[in-house]
Amino acid sequence: MNIFEKCESNVRSYCRNFPTIFHRAKGSIVYDESGQEYIDFFAGAGALNYGHNHDYIKNQIISYLNADGISHGLDMYTSAKEKFLAKFNETVLTAKQLDYRIQFCGPTGTNAVEAALKLARKVKKNPGIFSFMGAYHGMTLGSLAITANKGIKAGTIGTLNNVTFMPYPYGFMESFDTIKYIDSVLNDVNSGIEKPAAIIFETVQAEGGVIVAPIEWMQRLRKLCDEHDILLICDDIQVGCGRTGAFFSFERAGIVPDMVILSKSISGYGLPMSLLLIKPELDIWEPGEHNGTFRGNQLAFIGATAALEYRESSSLELDVKEKELFLKEFLNQEIAAISENIIIRGIGMIWGIDVQNFGGKNFAKSITSRCFELGLIVETAGRNDTVIKILPPLVIDMFTLQKGCLILKQAFKDCLQN
Amino acid sequence: MNIFEKCESNVRSYCRNFPTIFHRAKGSIVYDESGQEYIDFFAGAGALNYGHNHDYIKNQIISYLNADGISHGLDMYTSAKEKFLAKFNETVLTAKQLDYRIQFCGPTGTNAVEAALKLARKVKKNPGIFSFMGAYHGMTLGSLAITANKGIKAGTIGTLNNVTFMPYPYGFMESFDTIKYIDSVLNDVNSGIEKPAAIIFETVQAEGGVIVAPIEWMQRLRKLCDEHDILLICDDIQVGCGRTGAFFSFERAGIVPDMVILSKSISGYGLPMSLLLIKPELDIWEPGEHNGTFRGNQLAFIGATAALEYRESSSLELDVKEKELFLKEFLNQEIAAISENIIIRGIGMIWGIDVQNFGGKNFAKSITSRCFELGLIVETAGRNDTVIKILPPLVIDMFTLQKGCLILKQAFKDCLQN
Amino acid sequence: MNIFEKCESNVRSYCRNFPTIFHRAKGSIVYDESGQEYIDFFAGAGALNYGHNHDYIKNQIISYLNADGISHGLDMYTSAKEKFLAKFNETVLTAKQLDYRIQFCGPTGTNAVEAALKLARKVKKNPGIFSFMGAYHGMTLGSLAITANKGIKAGTIGTLNNVTFMPYPYGFMESFDTIKYIDSVLNDVNSGIEKPAAIIFETVQAEGGVIVAPIEWMQRLRKLCDEHDILLICDDIQVGCGRTGAFFSFERAGIVPDMVILSKSISGYGLPMSLLLIKPELDIWEPGEHNGTFRGNQLAFIGATAALEYRESSSLELDVKEKELFLKEFLNQEIAAISENIIIRGIGMIWGIDVQNFGGKNFAKSITSRCFELGLIVETAGRNDTVIKILPPLVIDMFTLQKGCLILKQAFKDCLQN
Amino acid sequence: MNIFEKCESNVRSYCRNFPTIFHRAKGSIVYDESGQEYIDFFAGAGALNYGHNHDYIKNQIISYLNADGISHGLDMYTSAKEKFLAKFNETVLTAKQLDYRIQFCGPTGTNAVEAALKLARKVKKNPGIFSFMGAYHGMTLGSLAITANKGIKAGTIGTLNNVTFMPYPYGFMESFDTIKYIDSVLNDVNSGIEKPAAIIFETVQAEGGVIVAPIEWMQRLRKLCDEHDILLICDDIQVGCGRTGAFFSFERAGIVPDMVILSKSISGYGLPMSLLLIKPELDIWEPGEHNGTFRGNQLAFIGATAALEYRESSSLELDVKEKELFLKEFLNQEIAAISENIIIRGIGMIWGIDVQNFGGKNFAKSITSRCFELGLIVETAGRNDTVIKILPPLVIDMFTLQKGCLILKQAFKDCLQN
Repeated sequence: MNIFEKCESNVRSYCRNFPTIFHRAKGSIVYDESGQEYIDFFAGAGALNYGHNHDYIKNQIISYLNADGISHGLDMYTSAKEKFLAKFNETVLTAKQLDYRIQFCGPTGTNAVEAALKLARKVKKNPGIFSFMGAYHGMTLGSLAITANKGIKAGTIGTLNNVTFMPYPYGFMESFDTIKYIDSVLNDVNSGIEKPAAIIFETVQAEGGVIVAPIEWMQRLRKLCDEHDILLICDDIQVGCGRTGAFFSFERAGIVPDMVILSKSISGYGLPMSLLLIKPELDIWEPGEHNGTFRGNQLAFIGATAALEYRESSSLELDVKEKELFLKEFLNQEIAAISENIIIRGIGMIWGIDVQNFGGKNFAKSITSRCFELGLIVETAGRNDTVIKILPPLVIDMFTLQKGCLILKQAFKDCLQN
Repeated sequence: MNIFEKCESNVRSYCRNFPTIFHRAKGSIVYDESGQEYIDFFAGAGALNYGHNHDYIKNQIISYLNADGISHGLDMYTSAKEKFLAKFNETVLTAKQLDYRIQFCGPTGTNAVEAALKLARKVKKNPGIFSFMGAYHGMTLGSLAITANKGIKAGTIGTLNNVTFMPYPYGFMESFDTIKYIDSVLNDVNSGIEKPAAIIFETVQAEGGVIVAPIEWMQRLRKLCDEHDILLICDDIQVGCGRTGAFFSFERAGIVPDMVILSKSISGYGLPMSLLLIKPELDIWEPGEHNGTFRGNQLAFIGATAALEYRESSSLELDVKEKELFLKEFLNQEIAAISENIIIRGIGMIWGIDVQNFGGKNFAKSITSRCFELGLIVETAGRNDTVIKILPPLVIDMFTLQKGCLILKQAFKDCLQN
Repeated sequence: MNIFEKCESNVRSYCRNFPTIFHRAKGSIVYDESGQEYIDFFAGAGALNYGHNHDYIKNQIISYLNADGISHGLDMYTSAKEKFLAKFNETVLTAKQLDYRIQFCGPTGTNAVEAALKLARKVKKNPGIFSFMGAYHGMTLGSLAITANKGIKAGTIGTLNNVTFMPYPYGFMESFDTIKYIDSVLNDVNSGIEKPAAIIFETVQAEGGVIVAPIEWMQRLRKLCDEHDILLICDDIQVGCGRTGAFFSFERAGIVPDMVILSKSISGYGLPMSLLLIKPELDIWEPGEHNGTFRGNQLAFIGATAALEYRESSSLELDVKEKELFLKEFLNQEIAAISENIIIRGIGMIWGIDVQNFGGKNFAKSITSRCFELGLIVETAGRNDTVIKILPPLVIDMFTLQKGCLILKQAFKDCLQN
Repeated sequence: MNIFEKCESNVRSYCRNFPTIFHRAKGSIVYDESGQEYIDFFAGAGALNYGHNHDYIKNQIISYLNADGISHGLDMYTSAKEKFLAKFNETVLTAKQLDYRIQFCGPTGTNAVEAALKLARKVKKNPGIFSFMGAYHGMTLGSLAITANKGIKAGTIGTLNNVTFMPYPYGFMESFDTIKYIDSVLNDVNSGIEKPAAIIFETVQAEGGVIVAPIEWMQRLRKLCDEHDILLICDDIQVGCGRTGAFFSFERAGIVPDMVILSKSISGYGLPMSLLLIKPELDIWEPGEHNGTFRGNQLAFIGATAALEYRESSSLELDVKEKELFLKEFLNQEIAAISENIIIRGIGMIWGIDVQNFGGKNFAKSITSRCFELGLIVETAGRNDTVIKILPPLVIDMFTLQKGCLILKQAFKDCLQN
């Protein structure tokens, strides 16, 4: 591992928790250079909903490469983009009766978040944004300003403005009506807090510790935005693309955000790609007003189209339902049963085991380390990394899912004995 | 072209100048769906220095895909990253006696710029940054704040702080000593302008209109930063990776910046990738303090390694020298000769034809449109898009280069007749 | 009134509510040019606690003028300042066992608020300030940023940063534990809200609508600041100098703020003056780091010294107690009795009649207009100016106080009949 | 001096340079408690243009006090304000054919500066302000942001935004065309610097070191503002009220700013007062949008009216002309003759002896200290306090002026011998 420690910046992180060199992967299994295999309950932090190197998608990409398809096309028109647009429009937007314009942003989630903020500010001529306590939206300056984690802002001195963090229904903030709090702040001429251009939210705060927003809360948030003429932006980067069951995570509340951000699993193959969906009347961008060299990552378009084709031909949403039930039952019966101080939260195929009051950060870390020794990749999230986050590929087979869960259970057993 | 206009955001831009659907590409030639071929003097805005779909690189990528190599690995250790680090360290850093730590940022130039700004602010505990008039650094909030173009900031109301734009030696600003200006501002206790954490610069302002900084100016800038204890950051996104001749564009001045940003052509195949090079003593990041889902774009690592291997086996730097001489002579003799109001600027294989005082924006646009009709892709840059920017792949063969230049000459002729 | 409308800026305000030209005043009575007299229940918005043109103070000022005492001395040492310092130190600080350094700021409340903010930020090297919903602290940029009223910020676009408004126990915000809210925000690493340098508060939000902070709330606020190492600043501009009974309004909670701001009535005669009291260990100002031409308003020093002498020789605090009881009883029995939708709030000699739910702004305005016709000066405050604010000079005699109250009652009667 | 050191904040400054307790003053002479007399070449930093305790003004103030005139009236209409408005309108505005609305701000220069900035931002819906290197405008947050002195901003971390400092014709910045620089920055779409709402300037940078703007420079600045639709604000706090000869210092250039700020000597007696003059079409304030308890300092209105009456009855402007000639000749012949490294700058009755290249800060300090020993009060200003600033009352008699100058000369002699 010498070359990494010698040459790579100290900023590297996940590699510290999974100290081996990974080499090959297929579906839900990753192999390191020594051939050791690991079940993947992390799935590229949500970028691998279709598993590693999905064969159907892979074949489309290789064919495209072989045919010398455009590999880099800025934002020019290409055959690859044409096919993706047609497929996404047909199988996602039209199918769900959603009317959005599609913006291809620089191929990272944070870039699409930045585009959304700029557009909201431009539309409303108002710099204010409300974000939520617990929120995670990315690491570039605009996105970082709306990210709640205070531990990662040493390099931002005095540059994060115009953002107000509102209570999300979690912890003490769950003990009162958070929507009424926001409404009260907006209605009170003397609250000191100006009406924002937009409110940005996650339906499940994934990095925040797998906190699932109640359906009624989301519906009231949508209503509040309508009443106050505020744009509602859904950051669906980590829990979109089927993670909670439906393609979009907000579908369960029957609401329609004004903008939606997709990234991570959209390319189907872990390739960099992001989309910003914009209600047509808000699409007041000037040509080139937001741009970027890689906003046309063509291989990702190929992957994304193939992934949508795969969705059509499979029963993925139903499968997720089934695995959700299994995970929910397993975690509640096998893990929560260990102590009333362990809290289970989740939906679809994103679940958190909150051990904040059961050993905290060190305990969570010892569990994930033990899992790795036993052949399972799983990470922590949330306040002080006290939530073990279960995030398998959606396509994982039941046998491997169960096997991974048993390793998790074993890790708890082992760590509690020490 | 229906689906694009129906579904894609109004923000799309280059596609408007090149109204066809591109399908296939090889080397310096791009083909559209109808089979029409175009010589590429744009090269993905500098992302395709090695041309389209370079065979050596392509084969490495396909092999990797076939072997189910890791396609998405966050920032974990992988075989692909290991090989890239070793190769980059050997053939670039060690070969040039440069001592930098490598940070893999989110795979876009702007993301690496954001990382550099955050690190500079963190190191110096000072939010101030000096940037230059004419500068272009990207579209996320931090990068946009240091980008000089005022036309693209409608969505940033009140959020761009702590940045001071300094004169770059161009236009009226060339009529006095700009380095002395900066020095004077820093020395004067009563200038109102605080010492910044860092000064960020481009050795050639490419988007700014192909303005080449004099060697002595860069040397004095480095000295000024040393004297005032300010970090010097070189944004080498567009003109690095050999565009000006040497791998890094600052090598011609014999200076060593404190941080260097690479992106665009680093992957060799137009795949999203970016690097931030950091002097070891500045690498004070906490693990994970800057992160991102796609900072480990494995296919790009494969491409980048192959590209470095190709460099080793070719005479690319010498070839660029030869083509530079050709371009310089051609542009001065065939184009500048048309009028004393046409100005030619450039270095290596980035050249600008400034027609600000010869028809301006409309004329520049008519030239590039005519070029496209005649089978040449070329774009404008600079103030009001009045500079025609010549940016062929570095690997273009002399015959195609000449052919492209003749189209350019023809376009001038045609446009002057109308 | 021609000359005012012709020459004075549209920004003029109180003159619109009291449309006459005032000429002369004594104690609690003001006379206009026609000789008409008005009982003053406004007292210069709290600047005339000792009434108009108090004879003892006036005589000191005239003597000083006659003797050609220094009238303007910047911040040089003068006999007038010497005497004030000795008297304030003896009768206020030493008497109350308070250890503060005294800063003479530019002679306005807002200037002292600005000084307090700058010092807090300097001491803690942290730009953050928490202020409260409903707060009023002044109109210069720093003070305005911590003032909650959203209606007066049209000229501040994008310049109000680093301030977070916290819930004050009023309205919906009273329905949960606001101190616990603040504590939770500070403890949560993922709340998005950084620890501030200071929390600034008023013990009674006067402009906010006469909202009196509970004693326990203030004690818990002080404790919270101690636990989190945050400075506590009390803005005692409007309700200090005896308005609530004791000289400082925070004395009733037995707490000691880290900084205290006094202005308005401190000079005893309505002359511009302000003080910032600073705990000695926080007094890290460099000489001249905050300055101002009029920070040595010598006539105000003479007035302030005389006012303190008057306090010593009178039973002012006891008198205020007696009048507080009268006002409380009168307002509750005679005004609140009109409707359960009328709310009475207050302490000492600052009382509010909240008619937000009883006719609102228009009704409040009609009451004060009718009062003026009947010979009583009284103003509104609070959200949408729906609170009639009773603020007589502390020295008002009982007969005049009763007479004023009867006018108020009559105004309610008259307005309800129309 | 015990009580000062014991009780007063460390921020006190001038008192350190003039270590005695002042007691009484008349005209150009100040007396300390021991009876020692000092000639005053400082004049309250420009607040005492009419000298100390001018008898005519004093008598008006005492009469007003004796008659129980309103001493504090917020911004209500009062007889005192009425008379001032009429007199100012007649003898200043109408006489000079200027059409301005008058805003009574909080009674300090910085407060009027804050009002001007807010109004400019409101009018232009643009937060940007250009200020100049060397500028001094005050110490509250808005004013401090446009003040160039970097040594006094420790308490402002990250709060000073939207201000750009432009070169003022001084030092290196005098070696090129500073107006063309500003014009170039505004015209260049790629300069990174947005068009501001306003440019604020001093015709003489007094605190900046007595730097007198050339007449042509001011005329071109006015023209530039017209061409770019930018408001021009003149801060005439220190050099207005006749200091340079005419009542307004900008009269010598024949220009009319869009807003003008007056304070310091406007009250005629050193009492706190400030005015903002606003072109009528810009007076879009809402009532009360900028306010303040002491914006109606009635004693100052009495003083200001009396001062204007005195001006009418005297030959002040002619007298200043005569004394200007004397000072110019004396300083050039007696002081500048000492060394070519001593530079004399000035106009009217504000003059600077720049010793930056002749001993610097320590030498300047030793001169003013020696002056004080010899009975002359004189201060330093400028970069590192290297400019001895000569600022006598305008009404000083020739004999005293000469006497003060001789002391100054003696101090140079004494300091050079040591």
